[in-house]
Amino acid sequence: MYIGIDLGGTNIAVGMVDDNGKILAQESLPTLSGRSYEEIVKDMAVLCEKVAEQSGHSMKEVDAIGIGSPGAVDSENGVVIFAGNLKFEKAPIALEMRKYFDIPVNLENDANAAAYGEYAVCGHEAESFVFITLGTGVGGGIIINNQIYRGFNGAGAEIGHMTLKMDGKPCTCGRKGCFEVYASVTALIEQTVQAMSKNPESMMNDWIKENGHVSGRTAFECAAKGDEAAMQVKDTYIRYVAEGVTSIVNIFQPDMLVIGGGISREGDVLLKPLKGYVSNGDFNKFMKKTDIQTAKLFNDAGIIGAALAAKNNV
Amino acid sequence: MYIGIDLGGTNIAVGMVDDNGKILAQESLPTLSGRSYEEIVKDMAVLCEKVAEQSGHSMKEVDAIGIGSPGAVDSENGVVIFAGNLKFEKAPIALEMRKYFDIPVNLENDANAAAYGEYAVCGHEAESFVFITLGTGVGGGIIINNQIYRGFNGAGAEIGHMTLKMDGKPCTCGRKGCFEVYASVTALIEQTVQAMSKNPESMMNDWIKENGHVSGRTAFECAAKGDEAAMQVKDTYIRYVAEGVTSIVNIFQPDMLVIGGGISREGDVLLKPLKGYVSNGDFNKFMKKTDIQTAKLFNDAGIIGAALAAKNNV
Repeated sequence: MYIGIDLGGTNIAVGMVDDNGKILAQESLPTLSGRSYEEIVKDMAVLCEKVAEQSGHSMKEVDAIGIGSPGAVDSENGVVIFAGNLKFEKAPIALEMRKYFDIPVNLENDANAAAYGEYAVCGHEAESFVFITLGTGVGGGIIINNQIYRGFNGAGAEIGHMTLKMDGKPCTCGRKGCFEVYASVTALIEQTVQAMSKNPESMMNDWIKENGHVSGRTAFECAAKGDEAAMQVKDTYIRYVAEGVTSIVNIFQPDMLVIGGGISREGDVLLKPLKGYVSNGDFNKFMKKTDIQTAKLFNDAGIIGAALAAKNNV
Repeated sequence: MYIGIDLGGTNIAVGMVDDNGKILAQESLPTLSGRSYEEIVKDMAVLCEKVAEQSGHSMKEVDAIGIGSPGAVDSENGVVIFAGNLKFEKAPIALEMRKYFDIPVNLENDANAAAYGEYAVCGHEAESFVFITLGTGVGGGIIINNQIYRGFNGAGAEIGHMTLKMDGKPCTCGRKGCFEVYASVTALIEQTVQAMSKNPESMMNDWIKENGHVSGRTAFECAAKGDEAAMQVKDTYIRYVAEGVTSIVNIFQPDMLVIGGGISREGDVLLKPLKGYVSNGDFNKFMKKTDIQTAKLFNDAGIIGAALAAKNNV
C-alpha cells in the first residue's frame, strides 16, 4: 500500500494507491502557496491520515509515501531546490514528512512522477518511454529501464525547452522559440485568439459566447463542426506538436511515447494526424516505429505515479 | 586485448587496442564501397591478422572484435540493416566475421562507437554522457550508466535530426530545419561561401587562393586574424551549435557533453563562446551545470570506441 501526493501550485491532492496503481481513496486541500513548506507538509500529513482511514486502512499499512513537486528537485535528498509557483527554495520536504510518519518518502519532479504513472500503468513493457504533457507549459518525463531519467542534477527531461524555432517567439525561460511556446495549451489558446480576430465569421466567435472564454477546446470543437478557420488552427497546432515529437523520436527512438495534458482527451482527433506527421518525418525509415499514444490516467497520473515511483525506489 | 574496426564509406580502419583504450597497431584499406559485405569483411579479417602481428600478438590473444558501421544497425544480431554509403542492406557482418575468427563480435552504429570511445577514455565517471560530432552531418551518441543508448530499434541518438528551425532549410532526411542543416561542417562551409560572396574584401577570399578551397577552417582562421566577416560567420555558426547543445542539455542534463568532429580541434575558440551561450540559455538556473568539452580522441575514437564497446558487451 502506498500514498501518492500530487503537490501543485493550486491544490495538494493525496491518494491511497494499491500495488497495481489503483486509487482507493483521494482527498485534496488548497495549496495556498506562499506558505512555508512546514505548513504545507502538515496539510499533506492530515490528508494522508484521511485517505488511509477512508480506504479502510491505517498509516501502518503504508509502505512508502511518494511526492511529486513542481520545480527543480533533488530526489536523492528529498529536497525541492526551487519551485517558483510554491515559493520554495531548498525545502527539505521528505525529511519534514518523516516527522509525521516513520516510513520512506520518495520525492520526484511532478512531470517525472506523472510520466512514471503513465508508464507503470500503460507502458511497463517499454524499455524506453517518453511522456510529453501539453498544459500551461510543456513538461516531460523519460523512463529508461524502469527508472525515471533525471539527469545528473535532477533537472533533466525539460522537453518543453528544446528549440523548435530558433530566434522565434519569446519563452518564459528567457530563450526564444522553445517547443513550449508553440505546443502548450497556452500557445493553442493564443493561436485560437489570433485566428478568431482574423476570421470574424468563424464559428469560434460564437463558441465563446456560449462558453465564456477561449480554451484549448475552442478550435478542436469548432473544427469538428467543419469551421474552416478552426480546422486550420487545429492542424497548425498539431503540426507544432508533431515537429517536437519527431525530434524526440529521432533522439530517443523510445518503444512508446505518450501525450498527456487536457488536450490528450481529444484522442484520435489529435493522435491520427500527429502519427502521420511523425511517421512521415522521422529519420528512421527502415525499422520498427515508436508506439505513440494518448495518456490514460489524466489527472490521476500525478498521484499514481508518485506512489508507484516510491514503490519502485524504496 | 581487443580489435576495433571503424568501417567508413571511404576506408576500413582496424586497430589492436589494449584494455585501457590504447591503440597498439593500426592499418587501413580502402572500402571500395559497392562491393558485397562478404568481400569487405574479408578485407577486415586480413587487417585484423596484420595489426595483431604488428603489435606482437596473435589473434588468439584477442578477446573480442568490435565494429562500428554507418547506417541503421541491429546490434543484437550483428546486422547492418541499411547503410546508404556502403550499399548494404541486411548485411550480417558479425556472423560473417566469425567465419574467420571464433571470438565474440560486437556491432555498433559508428557514431555510437565513437561516443563510447570518448566516454570510456575521457568521461567514464559520467553516469550520463552525450557526444555530438560535427562533420559532413551531425551525429550523436548517448551513454547512460555505461551503456550505449540505442533506442528500442537501434536507430536512436540521431541528434542531428532534431529541429532547430521549423520550416527552415531543407535537410537530406526529407524534413526542414534540422540541427544538422545549420551546425554541420557542410553548413559552416555554406555559411562561409555566402559571407565571402557578400564581402569581397574579406580575408577569406585570399585564404582560399592559398588553400585551394573553402573548408571548415576558413572562417575560424581568418577570424583569428581579425577579419570582420569571418568573425561573424564564426559567431553565427557557434550560436547554431549552442542552440542545439542547449536543447540537448535541457533534455538530458548529462554529466558531460563532448563535441567531436574536425571543428572540435579549435578547442577553446569554439568551446568558450559555446559554453557562454549554453550556460546563459539553459533551463537549469539553480543546479550544477553539464561539463562541456571538446573531443580528445579525434580520428581514433571510432577504433577505440568499437573495441571498448566490444569489451563492455561481451
